[in-house]
Formats: sequence, C-alpha cells, structure tokens
Amino acid sequence: MTKWVYSFGGGRADGGAEDKNLLGGKGANLAEMSGLGMPVPPGFTLTTEVCTAYYDNGENYPNDLADQVTAAMGDMEKAAGAKFGDQENPLLVSVRSGARASMPGMMDTVLNLGLNDNTVQALARSSGNERFAWDSYRRFIQMYSDVVLGIDHYKFEGLLEDLKEEKDLRLDTDLSSDDLRELVDHFKAEVESAIGVAFPQDVTAQLWGAIGAVFGSWQNARAVTYRRLHDIPASWGTAVNIQAMVFGNMGEDSATGVAFTRDPSTGDKHFFGEYLINAQGEDVVAGIRTPQHLTKAARTEAGDDKPSLEEVMPAIFIELEAIYQRLEAHYRDMQDIEFTVQRGTLYMLQTRSGKRTAEAAIKIAVEMTNEGLLSREEAILRVAPDSLDQLLHPTLDPKAERQVIGHGLPASPGAATGKVAFSADQAESLAAQGESILLVRIETSPEDIHGMHAARGILTSRGGMTSHAAVVARGMGRPCVSGAGQLRIDYKSQTMQVGDIAIAAGDVITIDGSSGEVMLGEVATIQPKLSGGFATLMGWADEIRQLGIRTNAETPAEAKAAIEFGAEGIGLCRTEHMFFDTNRILAVREMILAEDLAGRQAALAKILPMQRQDFVDLFTIMTGLPVTIRLLDPPLHEFLPKSDDELAQLASVTGAAAEDLRFRANQLHEYNPMLGHRGCRLGISYPEIYEMQARAIFEAAAIVSVGQGKTVVPEVMIPLIASKAEFVFLQERIAAVAGQVSAEHGGKLEYLIGTMIELPRAALRAGEIAEEADFFSFGTNDLTQTVFGISRDDSAGFLEDYHDKGILEGDPFATLDRDGVGELVALAVERGRGSRSDLKLGICGEHGGDPASIAFCQSVGLDYVSCSPFRVPIARLAAAQAAISSRDKS
Amino acid sequence: MTKWVYSFGGGRADGGAEDKNLLGGKGANLAEMSGLGMPVPPGFTLTTEVCTAYYDNGENYPNDLADQVTAAMGDMEKAAGAKFGDQENPLLVSVRSGARASMPGMMDTVLNLGLNDNTVQALARSSGNERFAWDSYRRFIQMYSDVVLGIDHYKFEGLLEDLKEEKDLRLDTDLSSDDLRELVDHFKAEVESAIGVAFPQDVTAQLWGAIGAVFGSWQNARAVTYRRLHDIPASWGTAVNIQAMVFGNMGEDSATGVAFTRDPSTGDKHFFGEYLINAQGEDVVAGIRTPQHLTKAARTEAGDDKPSLEEVMPAIFIELEAIYQRLEAHYRDMQDIEFTVQRGTLYMLQTRSGKRTAEAAIKIAVEMTNEGLLSREEAILRVAPDSLDQLLHPTLDPKAERQVIGHGLPASPGAATGKVAFSADQAESLAAQGESILLVRIETSPEDIHGMHAARGILTSRGGMTSHAAVVARGMGRPCVSGAGQLRIDYKSQTMQVGDIAIAAGDVITIDGSSGEVMLGEVATIQPKLSGGFATLMGWADEIRQLGIRTNAETPAEAKAAIEFGAEGIGLCRTEHMFFDTNRILAVREMILAEDLAGRQAALAKILPMQRQDFVDLFTIMTGLPVTIRLLDPPLHEFLPKSDDELAQLASVTGAAAEDLRFRANQLHEYNPMLGHRGCRLGISYPEIYEMQARAIFEAAAIVSVGQGKTVVPEVMIPLIASKAEFVFLQERIAAVAGQVSAEHGGKLEYLIGTMIELPRAALRAGEIAEEADFFSFGTNDLTQTVFGISRDDSAGFLEDYHDKGILEGDPFATLDRDGVGELVALAVERGRGSRSDLKLGICGEHGGDPASIAFCQSVGLDYVSCSPFRVPIARLAAAQAAISSRDKS
Repeated sequence: MTKWVYSFGGGRADGGAEDKNLLGGKGANLAEMSGLGMPVPPGFTLTTEVCTAYYDNGENYPNDLADQVTAAMGDMEKAAGAKFGDQENPLLVSVRSGARASMPGMMDTVLNLGLNDNTVQALARSSGNERFAWDSYRRFIQMYSDVVLGIDHYKFEGLLEDLKEEKDLRLDTDLSSDDLRELVDHFKAEVESAIGVAFPQDVTAQLWGAIGAVFGSWQNARAVTYRRLHDIPASWGTAVNIQAMVFGNMGEDSATGVAFTRDPSTGDKHFFGEYLINAQGEDVVAGIRTPQHLTKAARTEAGDDKPSLEEVMPAIFIELEAIYQRLEAHYRDMQDIEFTVQRGTLYMLQTRSGKRTAEAAIKIAVEMTNEGLLSREEAILRVAPDSLDQLLHPTLDPKAERQVIGHGLPASPGAATGKVAFSADQAESLAAQGESILLVRIETSPEDIHGMHAARGILTSRGGMTSHAAVVARGMGRPCVSGAGQLRIDYKSQTMQVGDIAIAAGDVITIDGSSGEVMLGEVATIQPKLSGGFATLMGWADEIRQLGIRTNAETPAEAKAAIEFGAEGIGLCRTEHMFFDTNRILAVREMILAEDLAGRQAALAKILPMQRQDFVDLFTIMTGLPVTIRLLDPPLHEFLPKSDDELAQLASVTGAAAEDLRFRANQLHEYNPMLGHRGCRLGISYPEIYEMQARAIFEAAAIVSVGQGKTVVPEVMIPLIASKAEFVFLQERIAAVAGQVSAEHGGKLEYLIGTMIELPRAALRAGEIAEEADFFSFGTNDLTQTVFGISRDDSAGFLEDYHDKGILEGDPFATLDRDGVGELVALAVERGRGSRSDLKLGICGEHGGDPASIAFCQSVGLDYVSCSPFRVPIARLAAAQAAISSRDKS
Repeated sequence: MTKWVYSFGGGRADGGAEDKNLLGGKGANLAEMSGLGMPVPPGFTLTTEVCTAYYDNGENYPNDLADQVTAAMGDMEKAAGAKFGDQENPLLVSVRSGARASMPGMMDTVLNLGLNDNTVQALARSSGNERFAWDSYRRFIQMYSDVVLGIDHYKFEGLLEDLKEEKDLRLDTDLSSDDLRELVDHFKAEVESAIGVAFPQDVTAQLWGAIGAVFGSWQNARAVTYRRLHDIPASWGTAVNIQAMVFGNMGEDSATGVAFTRDPSTGDKHFFGEYLINAQGEDVVAGIRTPQHLTKAARTEAGDDKPSLEEVMPAIFIELEAIYQRLEAHYRDMQDIEFTVQRGTLYMLQTRSGKRTAEAAIKIAVEMTNEGLLSREEAILRVAPDSLDQLLHPTLDPKAERQVIGHGLPASPGAATGKVAFSADQAESLAAQGESILLVRIETSPEDIHGMHAARGILTSRGGMTSHAAVVARGMGRPCVSGAGQLRIDYKSQTMQVGDIAIAAGDVITIDGSSGEVMLGEVATIQPKLSGGFATLMGWADEIRQLGIRTNAETPAEAKAAIEFGAEGIGLCRTEHMFFDTNRILAVREMILAEDLAGRQAALAKILPMQRQDFVDLFTIMTGLPVTIRLLDPPLHEFLPKSDDELAQLASVTGAAAEDLRFRANQLHEYNPMLGHRGCRLGISYPEIYEMQARAIFEAAAIVSVGQGKTVVPEVMIPLIASKAEFVFLQERIAAVAGQVSAEHGGKLEYLIGTMIELPRAALRAGEIAEEADFFSFGTNDLTQTVFGISRDDSAGFLEDYHDKGILEGDPFATLDRDGVGELVALAVERGRGSRSDLKLGICGEHGGDPASIAFCQSVGLDYVSCSPFRVPIARLAAAQAAISSRDKS
C-alpha cells in the first residue's frame, strides 16, 4: 500500500528534510523540525505523489487516501489535544500548498478551516475572545469562498464596506463582535445566492474542499506560466500540508515573531528579529504596530524603550535561543524562522534558509567555515556570484523613493546621479567645476569619449548592449543605460521629453545601469565596500576552480583594474578601440578613404608607432600573463566622420574634395553592418591593415621581451572566420610579418595565431580550422546573433514582448542559450579537439562573465573564460562553483 | 612491373576512352580513336601515375620509366616510318599535358620537338620547303626555351622585331628562309648567354627536358590556383602525351580543319566545319585567312565561291565523313574534331564532345534519343539546366561589340537596351511614347513599381540580390543589374557618372542581368525561342524526377507564367509584396504608425478585403495545386515613407503630426534589419497582423472552395522561427482564426501550418519544432546569411576579393554551401522527420532554382523545391538529373 500521508508533530515525524521531493519544501522542513523534537503544531502532509496520481487518474484521488487522511487526522487531534469540528474544544487547521521548488504566491491557501456556526461559539469560549472568534470566522468564509467555491473576494469586501458605511465606521478594527456576527450572516447569504446552497457546515467537507482546491491550483494559469518560465515540470506536483492552527493573538501571554539566526544585512553573528505581543503573523509584517526587538542588546543599541522578548518572556526566549542555535547548526546555514507563542507555549511555524545581502552572504559563509560548520566548497556554493556586483558598484538605496520615468538596457552596472548635459564638451566643463554630470546623448561616438570620462554615468536613447556607449562605459566602469527609446532628446532646445515630463540641461536625474531604469531627481545610492571575507572566499575559489579567468581589456587602466580583481591574462583586446583615440582617428580615416594601396600604406605608417606603443604598455602591465589580441573587427564605416564639419576637416587634411569623401563614405554604407565587411574580411580585402597590426604586436613583444628579460607570447586572434581558407590566407601573412620582425630584431619570436569561433559555419568547420589554428576563442555574442538571427542592438524592444508573452525566459545575450548556441559550441569543441588535442579553448563574449554560462563552459571543457574587468571576481566564484558541481556530477 | 607508358597508333592502342583517369582526357581519346583503327598519328602516353610517383618520390621518375619510353619511342618510329633525331627522315614530336579534367591553358606544351641543326636540314629536304623547316626550328627554340629552360619569350620576340627592323620588313611572313636561319643563330646565342650552355642538340635530352617541364607545370601557380578553384585534387596528377607531328602546311595536297558532327548553334543534323589548304591548325582559328566550308551544301547555301573540301579532296572527304559518323555513333554525342591532311593522308588529331548552344543541346539530345543512340535519361543528362536561361530571356549577341563601363549584381537575368530615365514617372511617360527605357535609380522603392513595369530593364547603384529592385524585377521577368556601386547617380542634374564617362537622361545604355554588366550604347540582343524539342525533353524530365517543382509567386501574372513553365504549386507567396500596392500602402503605413492596438486594428480592417482578394485570385489560378503563403516577414520600417512629401501626405490622412510620425519612424530604425524585428517576431508583438492575414487566407479558401467545388488547402507558413515556443504561440492564434472562419462559413476548413527553417537555431531545434509544424520550408537565403554571418546585400564587394584571392569559389547565395549550410539542412531534415515521419519538406530560397543545390535537395530527401517562375524549367531538368544521379549512386 502506498503511503500517501506523512504525519508530523508531537516530537516525531514520518519524514524529514531529505524528503523534499515527496513532501515539498514546507512539509519537509516541518517534518524535520518535528523530528528534532521541536515544538511544531501537529499536522500531516499529502505527498506530491497524491497530486500526480490525482491528475493521472482523471482528477480522482487514490482509493486509500481518505482512510489515511482520517487516521492522520486522529493522530493530529491527539497531539493537539483538540478535536476537529468539536463543539467544545474544536481543532482548527490550515491547508497549504507546498511544492518541491518555491513558487511564491502561485497557489492557494486556506486558514482557520474547521470553523462553522457551532465551532465559532466554542472558539469564542475557549479563547475568551468573542470578537476574535467571529473575526476568524468571517475571514475563513471569505477565504474559503474565494479559493474553494470560486466566489470573487471583492463581493465580500463590498459587503464589509457596506456594513461599515451603515454603521458609520472607518476601520475594520472598529467593528464589534456583534457587527462581525452580522457580517457573517451577510457573507453566508452571499454564498448561498452565488452557488445555490449554504456555506458548508460539515468540517470534513470543508477539509476535502480545501484539499481539492489546493491540488487544483497546481494547474491554474499563474502556476502553469510560472512553471514554464522556471522550467519546473508539471509532473513534479505539489504536496498539501494540513496543520493545527496556533494563535499569537490570544492575549498578553501570546506573541508572534520572525527572526534570523544572523544579521541578514551585515552577516554579523547575533540573533536578529522582531516580535509583537498578542498579535498574528501578518501584524509583524504589515507595519501597523511597530514590532519590538527580540534581544535586550538590540533594544539597547537602538535606544528603544519597548521591552524585548528576552525581557518580557525570558523562559520563552531561552527556549527560542536554544532552538535557533540548533536549527542553524542542523541546517548549517543562517535560518529565517517564524514562531508563535500561544498562551505561554512556543510553537515553531517555519524555518528556511534566510535571504541576505552579498556582504552578509560572504561573511556568513566564511565565518561558518571557520567555525567548522561548512567546508570551503560549501562556503563557495553559498554565495551567488552575481550578487558580488553589489560589492563592486554603487547601488541604489533600496529604501530610497524613486520616480521611474523610463527605461533602457542595463548596459553597464552601477547607479549614478547627476545634472544632465547633452554634449561631451558641456559635460567636461561642468565636471571640471565640480558638478556631478550625467551625459545624455542620442548615441555616442568616439568624439564623446572625453565627456564620458568626465561624467558619472551615460544615458542614450539609441543603441544596444554592444553600442559604443555600452562598451566604452563598461570598460571605464561607468554606469550606463543605453537605448532608452522613449526619450525624445533634442540637442537644439537642450531638452529631453519623456511622455509629459520635460527635462532640461542641468536638471538632476538618476540612472541605474544594473536595471536600466531612468529616474527623476536624485535617488540615494550606497557605496560599495569589500570586506576581508571577500578576499578569503576568492582565495578559496581560486584553489578550487579549473577554468582560467581572463579579462576583456584594451586600456592600461582596464588591464590594471582587471589584475587587481584577479584576472590571469587578457582574453580579448579589441584593437579597434585603440583607433578611436583623437590623435589617430584622422589617420585611420585617411587610411579608410584612401583611393589605393599606397594611400592606405601611408596612413597605416602613421598609425603603426602608436599601435606599437599600445601593445608595449599592455605587455608591460600584463607581464608574464597571456594577452590575446583581436585584429581589427568592425566595419570601416564605423570610424568615418558623421557631420559635415568633420568631413570638411578631413578634406582639408587629406586634400581630397569633401564631395569625393562623402561619396566614398556612402559607398561604405551597409544595410547590415553586423553581417558586413568586417572581421577577417577586412584583412582579406586589405591585408596591409592586419600586417600593420601584426607588426605592431610583434615589435612590441620584441621590445618588452628585451626590456623585461621575459618572453612575451602574444596570441594573435583573427575574427569572424567562416572557413579554413580565410584563416590560412591571413595566418600566412601574419607569420610572414613575424618572420620579418624576428629577423630585424635578431631573436626568435614566440606567438600563437588563433581565431574567434563566432559564426555557425566556423563551429561546423571547426575540425578543419583547428588543423591550422593554435587556439579558439568563442565569440558568443556574435554566435548568439547569428544562431538566433537576432541583432543585439535591435532586439531589446521585441524581446520584451517575448518575455511578456512567456515565449522566452531571460536574455540569450546575457546567459548562453544551451539548446542552440550551446550545441554548436560543444560541437566545435569536439571537432576542434578531434583535430588538435592541445587546442586552447576560451570564451570572450559577454557570457564569459555570466555564472550560468560559466557553468556551461566548464561542462564542455573550455580552458578559460574572459570577461570585463569588473566581472572578474564574479567569474572566479562562478568557475569555482561550476568545478564543484561538475565534480559532484561525475 | 608497373606499366607507365601506353602506346597508340598504327590501328591499335594499349588503352581507351575508359582509361581517362590513367591517361588523361586527351590521351584516352587518342587511344580510343586509334583502337578503332582510325588514322591517328602514333604516339604514347606517360600515365598520371608517373606524375604521382614523380612527386611522391622527390621529383624523381620511376626507375623503369626510361626503358619503357625508349621502347614506346621505337614503336612510334616504326608506325610513323621515321626516326627520332634521324639525319635523313627525322621524326618530330609534340609533348603535351593531359589531365583527367580539362584545365585549359594551365599547363605547358612543346611542339616540333626533335629539331636540331641537323634535322632541320633533313626536314627542309623531306618537306621540300626550306622556309617551313627553319620557321619550325625558330618556333621550337622559342617554345622550348620558354617552357623548359625558363627564358622569357619576350626576349625572342625582341630579337625577331630587331631583325625585321634591320631588314626593313613588316610581317613575319616577309622573312625569307635565310632570314629565319639568321634568326635561329640569334636565338641560339640568346639561349647560350642566358643559361651558359648551348641549346640542346641531343633530341633525347630535348624529350626528357620537355617531359620534366610538363610534369613540373602541374605544380605551377596558375595550375595550383585553378585546381583549388575547381576542387581538383593535386593527387590526380597529369599525363604527358608524346605524339608524332603531322603538318597540314606541306603543300597543296595538305590541309587542316575543324568540324562538328552536328551544327553546334542550331543542333541541325549536318556535318559542319571549316578547313584551309596548306595551313596549320592555328591558321583556321586565327582568322588571317578565311577558312572554307567542308561540304558543298554549306558552301552553296552561304553563296561562297571558294571550293569545299568535298569538292577539292573528295576521297579525303568521304573518309572523313565515315570517321565522323563512326565517332558520333561510338561516343553517342556530337563531336568536335580536328584533322590534318599531310600530303594526301588524313590524320585525326582530336575528338571530344562539342560545345553547343542550349537550343542545339536540346535538339541533339532529343533527336539522338529518337535515333536510338541515347536513352531518355542520357538525353536529360546532356543538357545543362542553367543553359535554358538562354531560351527564356533575351541574351546579348556574343558577336556584338560591347563597351563595359561598370558592373553590379546579376539580379534578374536577360539583356535590355534603352534610354536612361532617372525617375519612374519619366520612364512611364517615355515608354508610353514608344521609347525603350531603362530605369536607373540609386535604389527602388514601392513607389517606383509603375516605372519598373514600363521599363525594359532596371539598373540600381545600391542594393543586393534581394533588394526591392532585384526581387520585383525577377518576379516581372525584367532584366536587372543591382548594386552597381561605381555609378554616381545625381537626380538633380539628371546624370550619372562612371569614372570619366557622363551619361545623361535619354542616353542609350545596355544592361546584362545575367552577368551584371553595364554597357554604353546599344548592344545587339538575341531574342529567345522555344523549340518543340524543349517540351519533349521537359516531359521526359517530369517522368523521371522525384522532387516536386513549385514556384515563388505573388501576383496572378507570376502564378500564370509559372504554371505555363510547369510549376506544380506555389512554394512561397511573400505577402509583403502585396502590401506595396499603391492602393494599400497608405493603410499599411497607418497600421504601422498607429499608437495602439485599436489604431492598428482599424487600419488592418481596411487591408483585409484587399488581402482576401489577393488570395481568391491566387487560389483560383492555382486550382488544385498547393499554395504556401508566408505571413508578413520584413521589418515594418521597410514600408515607411522616406521623403518629407510622403510623410506629409501620411500626416494629412492620419491626422497625426508629421513630427510625431517622424519620431515613430525613427524609433523603428534598425542597425541590422536582417536580424531585427521581422518575421514571426512581428506576429508575436502584433498578433493582430497575422490574424488579419490568416483570416484573409481562410476566407479566400472558403470562397474559392465553394466557387470551384474543390477543396483549397492553404499552407500557412510562419517565417523566422527560432524556437518551438514561438511557433506554438502563433500556431494557436492562426488555428483559432481558422476555427472562427470555419464557423462563419459553416464548413470544415482544411489547412496546414508550417514554418520556414531559415535560422541555425531552427535547424538545431527542428526535432521539437516538427512536433507541432506540418511542414518545413528551408529558407536558404537567410540560412546562408546567418550560417556565414554575411549580409547578402552587402557582400558583393568583399566576395569579389575572396574570388580574386582564391579563398572562395562561386557564390554561396547562388549555390548552396554543402559543408556549412548543407550540414544544418541535413540535420534539420533528420531531426524533423525523426519527430514526424510525414513532415513535408521543401526549399524556397533562391537555391531552389540552382541545379547544384537541387541535387543537394534530392540527396537529403526533400519533397520539393520552389523557385522563381522563369527558373521552373531549369529546376525541372535539374531535378530529373539529380534523380538519375542519385539512382546511379545507390
């Protein structure tokens, strides 16, 4: 016979915490506490298998369920010392859902079940509080009618309002017990008129009605959508928990409270919580009465004159203290607990792992490890890598009020407040006067860089996560919101309009680059701080992880920041960013607009020494660490002047007619630049560009090797390869330059030549490409764009529709799509290693800093991930977690 | 012992036509003719295995080769009745390469080998022509020195010019035998000064020198590039043919000629060719002397008074006639033959399958089948499907002179000549006056359609193979060259500039939409004609092919044309083209720029009846045939007005402020529209658009079903699917509309709902998508764009660099890339059919009309291909060929 029902309470339980799949999270923890001998109100759990059987069997219960429920009910009555439906000492119960995974608010609950016209009287007598009894009854009728009978709760709320109006009362609490009794009559009449029969007085019928409703709610629309979005299989089912009610509002010897076993904000090791005398659980949360401190120490420190639980109910407090310490030691984690004192008796209603700030998470994990509670691996698994962002960037004070007026893409994390400036020059000059400035542009271009430097943050109305603004801001560590399309920015009038709100230059706004929100006025921010625990935890992570962590960096500042954050090399140095510098953009443009090879070579000769110096600087900073340099990638038109003034300037420098330059620039126009003349295609059309870059790299390597007496081994990376033939064509030319430089410097140069794998075709042909390439770096940004056929810069708008309609969870540009992109990556790894077993494999797309994607990288066997400097700590922690998880699986 | 040398001549041969891999094409055919007892000058072939062994063995010959060559040489001398190097009756030989696959002009040849200071005298005596002997000797020295000794031929040409100047002569033929003797002295001196030793007088040394040079030329740069471009493995090697020289210039009883066994232009069954008395082969081709007709009938018909071979050498003619008839019957194909008559004796120098026009190819194939020479399958394999284009569009007269001034993409085939008009209105009004007009635009838009209709052809300076101009032109069957980027078109001055050439409105130009060329002035064109043989061959193809052939068509005219060409349904009806109609574009724009759902629905209500009528018309024309309708695909901004005037017009109609419309239009701007808010993404953001289209389709199906008493089964196709969730979301909505229409019309509707597979992710997830989709249609245009990461509209320029540098052969947008795109298609077929064994599979990209791609479609087991109307016959023939080839393989 299948066991469908598991009892708990009275110091014993049929199940425990390990039975989460069968009993659900809530049921398992109640059983666990009960099994530990803690004072849990007795009850029982209908298992998730009942739910599955119910749906498999045309919504019918298993035959033997009713008998098992009756038996469990008897046990509960015995343990509670009360009888369900009894006219003297009635037992009231709660009926709650409890699935394997938390699905907050998705399913139904019924409280105070077991009340009817008779038991309400008994409750009035036994509680000595008639108003309490009738208030409980009217609440039960409304809740039961809503959940079980399908009668809209607003009907009952209407009746309540009518009554208050009739009696000329303002608050619910103004209603007397007679008023409530009258309200119960109105409620019962409403039920009868709505469903044609009277409100059920048979408590067993009430119970089965509630059980059926909870199982039914597993398939309600909200729950179905929630499961689809969170990948929870319908086959898991929910459990149902039936538990004796206890009341903290039975007088001055009753109370209710919530507590954390350590401080959830700071992680400090002290008991932390609040309680109220003569109150129900929701009163503590609702904020109508101010809750009191649990400990005397906390009360004293806060200068609060209301007594603590420690002072009011010292015996209860000692009991609670013992329990919380046992629970924390038992679960080996900081617990969030709920308790009720009913007439001098303590009851534990819930325990679960408590939510905490990143700071607290680190402190708790490290201290528990030092206390011997956790292993280092467990400590590492306890901190969510993404939460570290809170420690690395200013964040909005969660308590601060905010008036959100628009939103764009969360292009670079952190929050910033400042006065609006609509031009880079304006931003720079105001910042020089000590003002905090936000630079607001339709989109940014290389000419705006000085203004971006000067500003606290950047806001654009156009452009995606890889727009100029976004990429530059991330590199600088400046908060940025990009592509906030609702903003109508008008440079002429120096205003921007959002709906009815007009914002002028100098007005203060706030942006949150972590959420993409744009807010009016100043919103308080919290500055980050790194505790000592941080370094400890990172050290443990480094010992455990297998993936190398590199960074995407171009400037010396970025490289230095990344090294401080623990980067072990550069995985992606995008050389095009070096071209945007004011000193060289003119030469770059000359090169692009040159009529012929000679013209291009002349311009490239001007760029070579500057580019060489870039690499000398980088190699010097990264001494001893690998540096992967991607050759020029973006389409040339990205470097071209946009305004007439710039064009005229270029014409005067080059001596060409502005008209001719404009024609040439128009010729370079592309419909889909993402799929255009870029990457290795530039190198194939104009080998002299890549040859100049290769020369700059190799000469720099030679210079620094001599200067430092250490061999610098640059990794030259060719972007956007789709075929082996492309790779070989360029590899030969780059190797030839290395040979020349080697001859000129009289020493042997060591270097690698590899490629990005960022097109589906490259992944498919990885086997033959690896015959020639020394390494692969997966460019999962472009791979995601091409596998999905979605432009990152254009997708923000319609992906929102996808989220709204439940078609897509998350953002494939943030977390790597395992089903599509992932299959191609795995295939490329397999084919690449098949050709060359020592092929070096890394990832340098934005996914390199995303924990879920890092777990994927570990699972397919990459050697390293590379991410922006500020995400390096996140990647270190995530890589350690991935290593632990993969070890657990194998 | 390996046989390295194969002899032929004297009525026998060691090998034959079936030994092409071993003997090369030329050697195998010489052996075959020889084996048939035909008069072939004797010789022998060094096999391709010698070449392979030579390179495998560090460029050394096999040990026993020399002995075998000596033996073969002896046989040849015997058969020729002359001795190599003999002072009385010297044998001269040619040394020629001959690979398995034809590699015209890539490798080296030496003629007249065996001449030296002694044998030249003997030749003078035996030929009785001293000048001939010395002319042969000086040509041999020059050729041998160039090919074998590596001395540039221009040096010898310089010496020749010097001598003529010295002697004050104008033509080479003015040189006397003494002059030539003097020239030989100069040549020999030049050789000695260049290489330090005298020109080799030892004929055996000459022979081995030439053999080495020919094998060496297998690895010259030209040959290596050619092989890479044509996928010829280096391991195939080349054979070397050594053959006795014969001379058609030994007097009035000598002659040389070329002939085709049937007319290569018309396919008519009569012997067709030219000859010259006392001449060498190159004289016939060079055009210095006018060649004479072979047959009396041809001479008479041409009104030529120079006698035919039939009249001059009747016995030779009868012998030749017997041989050509035997060769044609033997090879069962029209032959291109070369012959020489040396002093009254006929020698056959070559036979091979003759090149022919498409018209001739069809006529010959059909007639040979009727003659019992070929099976129907063989007849089908004899006609190149692409050549049919010549029969369906006007082509440039190959003899006409042309001044090419620019080139763009071959966007729609056929040639057209006309006066330039720079606007659609101009084009229309001039065409109405009877002028032939070419419409020249920077790019076209829906507003230009009337002008495109009126024009003979369309030329644009911007836009790719899928630009508006290209797509519309192909549908209309108008020639089009798109994206000719060198043109600087200036509407204001009504001129276009190409380099130094200025072209004004009204000037005449010619375009070739098959090659992409733009030419100055009028170039004669040839109008196509379809012979009876065409229908016969197509009928045979239809019996044999397994692939269905559908068409891509939107308008009734296209649908009708396609049916006439034999289409069996519509595989792709792009509904967006219907939106461009002048009558409805305003409503479409209203819909796009609407602020909310209500506004969109109001505009869609205006479009519905027009859209419904589109489908009523199509279903009526296509009665009984399947029609696949793709729901709206392009990004909405493609429909928006571009000029201020149009914007103002729209503002006045909608009552919205022009400024607001401009803002909304700007909001719709996309960086990469190809990867943007298009395809099913529109349907997900605005389900009402697809619902309107579904309603129009189902209502039209209901109307036509009732009207015709036949069930119309529309196939509704959702574009740009990347995941099953997208498909299901839209499928449910479309099915709901079908249910409503069904209820309204009171009858059951039959329909299919399927999807394009045009993104890598869709191919990867095909298994789960097929759980819901009734059919897949591979959109290989977009799949190629995303697999390669190349925008078709932007790639023309850089793909040219790829071709120039030997990195890519062909165009992946023209012929499906089997290695990349093909792997994904095959995988999607396998996964799709794995989920649903009766899944209907087709292809509707441009590849659907490309023979090589059609062969691929057959190999992966698709059900049908779909192509533009004018390519339907090509597809029918190609599908038949693919069916035959796949049968042969299995």
